Amino acid sequence: MANAQFREVVQVAMVVPNIEAAVKAWAKILNVNEPQIIETEEWEKTGMRFRGVPSRGRAKLAFFRLNNITIELIQPVGEPSTWSEFLKKHGPGIHHIAFNVGNIDDAVKELLSVGGSVEQDGKFKGGGYVYVDAKGSLGAMIELLYHEK
Amino acid sequence: MANAQFREVVQVAMVVPNIEAAVKAWAKILNVNEPQIIETEEWEKTGMRFRGVPSRGRAKLAFFRLNNITIELIQPVGEPSTWSEFLKKHGPGIHHIAFNVGNIDDAVKELLSVGGSVEQDGKFKGGGYVYVDAKGSLGAMIELLYHEK
Repeated sequence: MANAQFREVVQVAMVVPNIEAAVKAWAKILNVNEPQIIETEEWEKTGMRFRGVPSRGRAKLAFFRLNNITIELIQPVGEPSTWSEFLKKHGPGIHHIAFNVGNIDDAVKELLSVGGSVEQDGKFKGGGYVYVDAKGSLGAMIELLYHEK
Repeated sequence: MANAQFREVVQVAMVVPNIEAAVKAWAKILNVNEPQIIETEEWEKTGMRFRGVPSRGRAKLAFFRLNNITIELIQPVGEPSTWSEFLKKHGPGIHHIAFNVGNIDDAVKELLSVGGSVEQDGKFKGGGYVYVDAKGSLGAMIELLYHEK
């Protein structure tokens, strides 16, 4: 039986230099209204760490809910962050896929057991996330999302 | 109402340098058996073109079917191809997301209308695909998959 917490990819996320333009393009392709663009909260609320070091790097975000998955657009704001580094290094592109997990520590440990490293972590209202850079083992940056119960 | 053909992302695809190792890692994380690794057919059958120019670049492929989406692993074999170029330029990472479309010409035209270019196209048994490089507009390489009726 498949491992329950990795049975479903909940988000695919792209890093873009101009989120307003990308939102317009996706809204046209999907034939839907433009979603709101939000900004990640300040460091005092997110406690964001990039490779273990606290960072004030933030991002603008927008979400398109398709039938089976959510497309997330990310524009880096300030730095350092995995988002700003990705954009500088690769240009716009697909940054990660996300899974919802129950126990975040177990899920991180499980991913690290096949190879990888913790890239970034932080909190948002109602939950938090850890990015595991598993490009060398799984071919992708993986976001583990957890929610407060 | 959302545009029907872009309502569902059917695949997320990663380019990797060693598909056997990546298959092992994903099978462990998902707790499933290792799927078969297949190879794309020879040029005489695929008619593969990379940026409009016929190419004998091929790839090894493996697919993991999750609940809501398929994860595709791609190891480039020979070149040129969008896969070998991606691996050289970026290292392992998420190469594209895929949509199933009805009329391939209309779907390509629709994507190109927001900005982008045809990156690669080819046939497989029962259908074919076109990659549209829409990184500059949508933040992603998009694969359009079509199937013979």
